[in-house]
Formats: sequence, structure tokens, C-alpha cells
Amino acid sequence: MTLEITPSRLDSLFRPRSVALVGAADKSVFSQLAYRNLDDFGFADRTYLVNRRGAVTHGRSTVTSCGQIGDPVDVAFMMVPQAATLDALSDAAAAGIRNAVILSSGYGETGEDGRAAEIELVAHARSLDMLLLGPNHLGFANFTTRTPVTSIPGLPSEAGPVALLSQSGGSSSAMLDFASVAGVGLSLMVTLGNEAMITAAHVLDYVVDDPNTRAVAMFLESVREPDVFRQAARRALAAGKAVVALKAGSSALSARTAAAHTGALVGNDRVIDAVFRDLGVIRVDSIEDMLLTAGAAAYLGRLARPGVGVVSISGGACDILADRAQDFGMSLPELAPETTRALTEIMPAYGTVQNPLDVTGSAINNPSMFTGAITAMSADPSVGVVAVVNSLPWESDGRPYATQAFVDAIGDGVATARGPVVHVNQVQQPITKYTRQVMDAGRVPYVLPGLRQAVTALSNVAWWSGLTGDRAPDAVGPVVTVAAERRRGAWTEIEARALLADASIPMVPGHLATSEDDAAKLAAEFGGPVALKIVSKNILHKSDIGGVRLGVVGEQAARQAYADVAASALKVPGAIVDGVLVTPMRSGGVELLVGVVQDPQWGPMLAVAVGGIFVEVLGDSVLAPLPVSTARAAEMLRGMRASALLDGVRGGRPADVDEVASVITRIGDLAVALGGELESLEVNPLWVNGGMIEALDAVVTWSPK
Amino acid sequence: MTLEITPSRLDSLFRPRSVALVGAADKSVFSQLAYRNLDDFGFADRTYLVNRRGAVTHGRSTVTSCGQIGDPVDVAFMMVPQAATLDALSDAAAAGIRNAVILSSGYGETGEDGRAAEIELVAHARSLDMLLLGPNHLGFANFTTRTPVTSIPGLPSEAGPVALLSQSGGSSSAMLDFASVAGVGLSLMVTLGNEAMITAAHVLDYVVDDPNTRAVAMFLESVREPDVFRQAARRALAAGKAVVALKAGSSALSARTAAAHTGALVGNDRVIDAVFRDLGVIRVDSIEDMLLTAGAAAYLGRLARPGVGVVSISGGACDILADRAQDFGMSLPELAPETTRALTEIMPAYGTVQNPLDVTGSAINNPSMFTGAITAMSADPSVGVVAVVNSLPWESDGRPYATQAFVDAIGDGVATARGPVVHVNQVQQPITKYTRQVMDAGRVPYVLPGLRQAVTALSNVAWWSGLTGDRAPDAVGPVVTVAAERRRGAWTEIEARALLADASIPMVPGHLATSEDDAAKLAAEFGGPVALKIVSKNILHKSDIGGVRLGVVGEQAARQAYADVAASALKVPGAIVDGVLVTPMRSGGVELLVGVVQDPQWGPMLAVAVGGIFVEVLGDSVLAPLPVSTARAAEMLRGMRASALLDGVRGGRPADVDEVASVITRIGDLAVALGGELESLEVNPLWVNGGMIEALDAVVTWSPK
Repeated sequence: MTLEITPSRLDSLFRPRSVALVGAADKSVFSQLAYRNLDDFGFADRTYLVNRRGAVTHGRSTVTSCGQIGDPVDVAFMMVPQAATLDALSDAAAAGIRNAVILSSGYGETGEDGRAAEIELVAHARSLDMLLLGPNHLGFANFTTRTPVTSIPGLPSEAGPVALLSQSGGSSSAMLDFASVAGVGLSLMVTLGNEAMITAAHVLDYVVDDPNTRAVAMFLESVREPDVFRQAARRALAAGKAVVALKAGSSALSARTAAAHTGALVGNDRVIDAVFRDLGVIRVDSIEDMLLTAGAAAYLGRLARPGVGVVSISGGACDILADRAQDFGMSLPELAPETTRALTEIMPAYGTVQNPLDVTGSAINNPSMFTGAITAMSADPSVGVVAVVNSLPWESDGRPYATQAFVDAIGDGVATARGPVVHVNQVQQPITKYTRQVMDAGRVPYVLPGLRQAVTALSNVAWWSGLTGDRAPDAVGPVVTVAAERRRGAWTEIEARALLADASIPMVPGHLATSEDDAAKLAAEFGGPVALKIVSKNILHKSDIGGVRLGVVGEQAARQAYADVAASALKVPGAIVDGVLVTPMRSGGVELLVGVVQDPQWGPMLAVAVGGIFVEVLGDSVLAPLPVSTARAAEMLRGMRASALLDGVRGGRPADVDEVASVITRIGDLAVALGGELESLEVNPLWVNGGMIEALDAVVTWSPK
Repeated sequence: MTLEITPSRLDSLFRPRSVALVGAADKSVFSQLAYRNLDDFGFADRTYLVNRRGAVTHGRSTVTSCGQIGDPVDVAFMMVPQAATLDALSDAAAAGIRNAVILSSGYGETGEDGRAAEIELVAHARSLDMLLLGPNHLGFANFTTRTPVTSIPGLPSEAGPVALLSQSGGSSSAMLDFASVAGVGLSLMVTLGNEAMITAAHVLDYVVDDPNTRAVAMFLESVREPDVFRQAARRALAAGKAVVALKAGSSALSARTAAAHTGALVGNDRVIDAVFRDLGVIRVDSIEDMLLTAGAAAYLGRLARPGVGVVSISGGACDILADRAQDFGMSLPELAPETTRALTEIMPAYGTVQNPLDVTGSAINNPSMFTGAITAMSADPSVGVVAVVNSLPWESDGRPYATQAFVDAIGDGVATARGPVVHVNQVQQPITKYTRQVMDAGRVPYVLPGLRQAVTALSNVAWWSGLTGDRAPDAVGPVVTVAAERRRGAWTEIEARALLADASIPMVPGHLATSEDDAAKLAAEFGGPVALKIVSKNILHKSDIGGVRLGVVGEQAARQAYADVAASALKVPGAIVDGVLVTPMRSGGVELLVGVVQDPQWGPMLAVAVGGIFVEVLGDSVLAPLPVSTARAAEMLRGMRASALLDGVRGGRPADVDEVASVITRIGDLAVALGGELESLEVNPLWVNGGMIEALDAVVTWSPK
């Protein structure tokens, strides 16, 4: 019997018709909080309390087993001790309950015994065809259906478009608090706990199909099912639902901390960056940015253009915004002549028509300047969203709100604008009931709090909006097959060269010499200086034993070099030597490193770097999961800090970046085609001189069987 | 008559015994707001209203001129039209008023005529011995003395230790809002406006002596009096009062925006960074961080050690904190054995004793774990401050606060800890009256909102706390004098070499050849390859005309090179040629660029970079105002992205960084000694190979008279 965790199957968990609170007890804080939530949300009449002794609990009668409930129940919310959970699962299953939310701790997070108990728990649930959420978490709440199956206090009372998924139970309460403070409405909140069966990736997959969810905020300490996550993230991107992730573990210390409290493996952070970028997952670095970006994406949707038009009454705010826009890569386009014309009509003579626009103090006497400025900005051909900077109140001072006229004028702008408009609060402030009244009166639907946070959210949404998915992820170029018996160990350079050549990757010319005469003849043929390298599958570090000679000029020198290099093999007793590879030396241009390694979680990862001293001194490399399109490969090249080298420095010729990108793509495609047994494939250097591109050396190794 | 803007003189402005509202009018919003503030703060009985027609205003009788007031008045708050301001000043001065706060606009911010009016305004005030704040601003408020001379609505009602200075009037209201939201108490708030007379630097100088101010928050668009600012910032550092600046203009666009609305010159942003760093001014990038960092510095004071010990009940919060600590350079020290021992006694077996510390869910049943953990952490020899992550409520749900016990336990920790303790809210939340009740009940004095913001504030305070002022700023090494008539134009390399040698800067050997024989003899003496360069004060770009030969080997080649280089001078008709400089070539090692230029605002600035391709491709340079200590010069070397080059790559010898730093300091000292007429002094390259350090080329130019 297979238990599939599909969106449709999860629907009965996250939209239950009724819930059994198993282990309900007056003296349990968790039980109290869970029941209070169900009651507060009007779900008490669809809640059944199961108490071992049948005692009156939370003021209600109880049953001693699920079987006694009689009515159909979708979810058992279990808060029984760990030791009693297996029996409780059996009892629930016998009553036809197919989903369990296991609050109890004492599983994988506690050590060896706990891990064994968790494995047993999952096996038992599978045998009962039951889905498990948790254990060791705080449940979930569906705000759309008003079903709180959670012991988190202080749930927001209103629903909204953002699904919140958290691997941290302890932080989820703070996340809910901030969602309330910032006015970010939630559709669903799920705490994941140990993810014994249902992972964050499964829930992400579920909410892609949830009509009430328009964006997803995720707090992650690790990604436990990379393939499910990948597929769900791709579906979300296609569905136009932004996925915003706060992924812990960017520091070594955090990796230690996360390991300490969840036992999860925190992956290499640069790989996570590259994978998220590839999947269109927006990565943020605070709880606040996670919820604000998700809220903005849900409210604004995909922007037609990345440009932000800014309207403000504070010159200081314009300055700060412009600075942060530059920091975070938010586009503040110059205005088109027709926009400038329209704004000039509105603005006083001493004002400056530009983006960001300071409407000046004139707006105090004439608030409708806001409306006019928003309308004009929104019509600009480079503007995808208008951000209006203003301040909203959070506490009433007992008098009518002094600048309600500004809010009204901005609301008029929202109504008449040609594109989306967002109100930005100049500083972080809560959206209180009073704030909401002021907003509603002015018909201002959404607010981003604080200039830096607003710039972060808008640049995130703009980046996500521009993702085109320029290449189908499974489209792979050349199909090169390698017989199974050859997929082992480290290949010689001769073998690696042949493989790359088969895959249409340009190689520097080279031939195997097996005598001094051969070497002399090849040196003469190639003309300029040559390199000689020992070729033996037993010799991995050729240079270390003197198996490499570079810059050898002339036939006589070639003979001597051959003799020296061949002799070096004697230092590796028993080495089988194929001969000596002779290649012409290349000079000038730029040397790149193009390497592929297998990430244990995410599969083949491509690294591109400027070779030589730059990668040594600066660690200047760019990562991407494979395959990569040529457009992406070109972006990687441009993403290197030393990318100006490609433009040609000190009289060098500018590199043909498109052609280099195309070669990189082919190297990546080759690695993908070779499959998971490939351990590494590295071209170092890939020599680039204008339009001349050649792999000067290549390494291929295979994973131990 | 000179009018000096001294702290004691400013005291009568910022702590007035009484205020005259000149131009008070019922129909003026500014007048209404100003009077309302004075009334709300209980200052109405020390406020006199001056109205042109003597009409009853704001429900009070008025006088038609200041002379009619009779009582002594310290400040005239002027809201008369621009055209009437000069007369109003005379009237106020005649009544003995020595300070004017000019709200009116229509001055420098509006263009040529306005600038003329502003100059006239200042001249008039000077002739009357009156101090001017503004014009074109919104006044100031002294919260300690409860004197609001401002038209900004919604002033905070409680005073605190942070002085807030803003060059933006339009944003100051939002800044006050955030100070209230975040619970950052203010001593004084001053909007600067056009700074016609009193600048932000003067007010900074004033608050250094204000006993009610413990830290300063400044929003700056430009620094108008660099010398006053510099001196005031140094005094603040010495007084242990942190200065936190949000300086706009880091982007080209923001510079444009600021220019548009204040007419201020926005300086080069990298210079500002370097100067602020040198002065110990903390630079931030949002209004929120400005106020939170200033609040934290005021509350915590100087930390004895930079290490932060973190105590939290959320593992997720620990992870996020650790990540951001790494991003912002906040130190999370490993705990000492005795701390680990103490914490192990408190923690459950399944918990992990580390920093950051997750006290685990055990604290739910045993909140005193917080107290114990804080006490133990605060005693750790590496911990300078304990940050306790928790959540506080902002709205009552009508029930007693559920986790008051946590707050109480944290308050107990604050009381018993050996060092400072700060409560960190897991997310941004307002400090409402309810929050304050909960805090007060638990004796928790101060809260930082949001993990990222808390890490920013604490790392800022830790950086500032560690400033030692390792060298008196006016200590300058070698005194080298250059006769006045020689301080002009561009010097020849021979002249520059002599100057540097006088200042004990090691030069590559070199001699002037004036014949082919000389050149051949020098080449023979030096042995290896040599460089030949034309020496003429009329030839600036030697290479362009063929006036440089590098890598010349042997006597015959030297003769030919001499002939070629000498001949190159013919391409510059009329050039007076001194001869040809012959120096040995150097290879290996690292080439640095060490240059000094004069910043128009801040004086001589030192730039250090890795020379050659690195500075070309990466723009990898570090700036500092002069003079620099050797410790600072060493920091600059370590601050370059390519600093690993100094450790020796590819078999190179590690540089003697201390000795290189010492040479850089001498170059800087030389530039300072040469004075403001020096335009630029550049050593490029400064060649470093292990302990061998030589200036291979030098340029000295002087400003046009």
C-alpha cells in the first residue's frame, strides 16, 4: 500500500470538516490553547474532545476514544504523550480518521531513541493509510475556512492571500504577530516540525493549487525533499504565485544551531542560493522581509515592468529611497518626455520633475497633486508600479486625522492609475484598527512599512516578475553515452579530451607522443611553445611529480622534456603510462574555470570562475544548478566580480561572451547527460581570447560504486 | 562684531525661558500646530503671540510687536512671510531677543533670488547679534525642558536620552513617529532647514555637552561645516556619546534628488564613509536603524567587550540571529568552560549549550531558566552584552498576558546580570502603552525590535565601543618643507623621488643619465633588466610619446633605449629635458598603489589599492582621511578584497604588512606636512616582495594658485 502525499489528499487535512482533539485535558496548556482557538474561530461545534478518562474538559463532555464520536472526522489533533501515540493513531484510524497532526515531542529532535520512535511512528501511520503532520510542532491554521488546528495563541482574525509555512514552531507565533502588525493577511499557516512524513515541500505543492493563496512565505532550516520542492516551486512560478523563503544556515554558526535543535542537515548555503535563484524562489534575510515581500507579491501580482515610479512629499524620503534602490537593484527609471510634461503641469515652478518625485510642500494646500502625480507616473512606459511615500497614523489623537486628505488623494490615484500602486509608509509602523479605518476611508488597500523594507519587497517582486523560464529545465543538448564499465575512477586527460570533443566542446589540439621523436615532431608541427604532460590513469597529481613541462620551445627541448616527463612516472611505482600529451601553449586572453560537481541534495551544480590568481585570491565564482541555458551562462559570466576581464583589459580582445556561454552550456549539458555517476567534470582552464575558445585541460572523475 | 556659535550661546536657543510666536495667525496651519504644541507641553504661559494686527489669536490676546511684550524672551519663532522677515528680526532684536527660528521658506532652496535673500538674512542677523535656526524648516523641540518650538504635529510626550537632528523637515515627523513606535526617547529634536547660520555640526557640538543627551541620531544630506563637524564628532567620541548618521547621497540618483530639494552639495560617498569611520560616526542606511542604534548606544553605553551572548526560546530565532551576525560582523563568542558548566546545570539533557542559546521548551514550565541563562552568559569573559530574544505583546486580548512569567524572568536577569542586558523582540512590533505596562511589570527597561535590526544596532554599538583613537589626529611624522616657489605644477619624477627620499620613504635606486654612456654604465651597475624614463617637467604622459622603456637588458640595449627615449622628447616642442632616469626593474611580489588627493570638503584623503589589473578590473581600493596610524594603514591593507595577495600566492613571500603600513603612514604624513597646496601625491607602484618595499614611481602635483 502506497501513501501518496498529493495536493488532493492534503485537502482533507488542511480543510477538515471536523476535528478530534485527542488527549484533550484541562491541565494541558496546549490543549487549552488549541480548544480556545477552535472556539474563537467558531469551530467548536465541529470539534470533538477525546479524553482518556472521559472527564468533562474545557467545559464540554468528552469521549474516551475516537470510535465513540460517531460522526465522520477528518483530522485527529494529537496531544497525547509520545508513548501513547501509536495506540492513539490506531484508534483514530479505526474511526476512519485519515489525518493526524502530532503535537507531541520526543522524536527525532531528541537523539537516537527518538529517531527510532519517529521511524516507527511513520511506519505505523503508513500501515494505517494515515497522513502525519509533525511531530514536534504546533499544528496549522486555515484562516480561509477558519479552522485552527494549532496551540499557537493570538491568531489573526482575518484571512488574506499569503500562505505561511514554518519549520520553526517557536518562531511561528512571532511571525503571526508580525503579519498582524504589518497587515499581511494569511490564507494558511502550517508549522512543519520534524517533517516525519509531510514536508514543507509537500505543503508548498498543496498551496500552489489553493485558490485562496496568491503567495507563499516559508521559513526553512533545511529542505528535506529537494525533488518535491523543486517541482512545487516550478509549479508555483508557472502559476504566478511568488515563493519567498527565509532559509537559515547561511552562517556556519547557524548551521550548528539548526543542527542542534532539529537534527536537520543544513545544506551548503551557496548551493541553496543558486538553486533558489534557478527556481525563482525569492530569498530574504528576515521574518519581516519574508512576510512583506510575500504580501507585496500577493497584492501586486506580476509586474509588467520592473521600473518603480516614486511619489513622495518628503525630499529626504526620496533620497533614502534612491540610495536603497541602488543597494538592492531596484529600478527607478528616468521618466519619459510625456510623463515629464504631465508632471510639469502639476508641479510648482521650484519643484524638480524626476523619479523619485518630491511633490513639495505645495501638496499641503493641494493634496490632489498626489492623485495627478500617481496617474502620470503610472502611465509612464517604464513604470511597472507606483510607490507613494506617505505616513499613516497608528493611534488616534482624538481629533479627526490631520492629513486624511493625503490618504484620500492617494486612494484616488490608486483608483485611476493605469497600473498597480502601493502606499509606502516612511517608517515602520503597525497597521492598527485605526490605521485600517484611515486607509479604508481613503480607499488605500495596501501599505508597505518603512523605506528600506519597501525597497526590498519591491525589488524582490520586480525580480520575480521578470523571470521568463528561458529554457525548459529538462532540455539537454548532446547525448553522450559512456559504457557502464568505463564509469569509474579518474580518467586520463586523453580520455577526458575525447569525451569533451564528442560533446562539441572545442579542445586545444593535442597528440599523444610515445617517443622523443614523436615529441620533437609534434613540437615542430605546433610551431610555438608547447606543453608536455604525462598520461597515466594512475597519476592524479602530475605536476607534483614533475610530470608536466610548460613553455617548451624547439625540437631539442621537446626531446629533453619528453625524457624528463616520462621519467617522472617512475616515482609512481606500477603506474601504467599511455604516453606524453603534447599541446601548443596559449597566451593572452582570459582563463576560466568551468566545473561541475554533484551536490548530494540538489544534483549537478555548475561553477564558473575566472581562473588563475583571481579565483585563488578572491574566490570569485558563480554557481548554478544544471542544466543552464546560454542566456543563464552569459549571466553567470557577467555575475563574476572580475567580469570586466572579459571585456578585454590592457589591449586584450573582448571575449565573445555568447560563444563562451554556449560552450559552458555544452559542458553543463554533457555533465547532465553523463548522469549521477559522474563525480566531477572540470575544464580548467577554458581559454578565451576574443572569439578563440579552447579547453586547455580537462578532468573527469566518477563516483565510487 | 563676531557672532560665535558656541554650545553656551546655543543654550539660550534650545533651552529658552520664553518664546515669542511672531506671525501668529488663526488661519495659518503652522501657527496652529506650533501653538498647540506649546500648549500641550504646558509652555503656553511662557509663550507670547505677536500678530501684525493685534487680533485675538488661538484664543489669546496678542501684541503687534516684540517690543510690547515687556518680559525677557529668548527665542522668536518666526512664521512671517519671507519679505517681512528682516523687519521682524529687527523688531525682535530691539526687544532683546537674541535667537530666531525662521520657519519661512523662499530662500536658498528656491534658486538665485532666494540665495541672495538668504545671504541678506544672515548678514542682517549678524548685524543684530542674533542666532538663526533655519530658514525653511520646522523648528525644534526640547523634550527635556518640554519646550516645543516646532510646527510638527504628534510630538512624543516623554523625554529620553537621544538627540535627533534632521536636515529634512518633511521626514522629521516620520522620524518622531518611529521613535514613539520603537520606544526610543528623545532629549532634543532639531530640524536644520537651509542651515543659513546654525548647521547640524553646531547642534552636534551643542548636544555633546547636553547632560540629557547620551547619543545622537542625525539625518544628513550634506555636511556644511566639515571642520566643526569633525571637531564635534571627536568630542562626542571622547565623551562616550555615540553619533549615528543616516547620510543620504550614496547613490548618484540620490545626490541628484538632494541637490534638487536643498541645493546642498552632496559629497563623494566613499569619502564620507571613510571620514565617518575615522571619526567614529556610525553610518546606517535607514531611519529605523538610525534611531534604534542611537537608542541602544544611549541605553547600553560603551560595551566592555564586543561579544554578544544570546538567550532565546526559539531555535529559529537563534538561526536567523547567527546568520545576520555573520552578515553584519556581530561577534557571537564561543562560551568559556565555566559558562558552559553553569548553563549545563540549567539546561535539559536534550538541549545544546552554545551561543546563541536555545533554552528549549523547558522554559515554558520553568521560566526562571531565562534568569539563570542571562546570569551565566553575562559572566562569560567574552560577553559584553546579553541579548534575550522573546516576544512582547502590543495589544491586550483582555486576558492577563499569557507569558508575563517570561518577561518577569528576563527582568530578574537584567537585575542580576554582571553586564548590560537587552530584550530583543523576535519581530518588529510597536512599544504601545500596553507593551510598556508588561515591560514595567517585569522590570524590562529596553527593547530592540526585530532580529535583523537588533543585530545591526548591537554590531554598530560594539564597533563604536571598540574605538580606541589609536593615534592623536594631529600627530604628523616627518616635517618636510617645500619652498613656496616650488609648490606649483607637476613635478618630475626626479624631484618627486628626492622628496620621498627626504621623508624616509624607500625608493628604488635610480640615477639620471645624460648620455648613452651614462645609460650603459648604469645598466651595467644595476646588473639585471632596467627601466629608462624621460625626465622633463613639460612631459606628463611619458609612455604616450615613447618616453619609457622597460626590461632593457645589457649595455648595448641601454644605449639604444637611451637614444629612443631621449628622441621622444622631440614630440613635445619646447620641452626642457633633464635627462633619462635609469632604474632597475623589479619582479615578483605585489604592486600597490598609494595615493593622496585633496577632498574639497574633508582635506587630504589616502587611497590604498592593489595595483595593476586588480585595481583596473575590481576597483579594489580603500580610503581614509589623513593622517593614518600604522595600525589603521594595516587595517586598510587587510580591508582590500585582494588582500590575500599580501599573504603570498603561488610561492610568493608573505609581505611584511607592518613595514608596508609604516611606509604608507609616512607617505600620508608627508602629504599632510606638504599642506593644502599639494594637489596629489601618488606612489604607483609601491613594490612589496616579502620585506622588500620600494616606491618604483612617484607623482607630485600642486594645485593651481
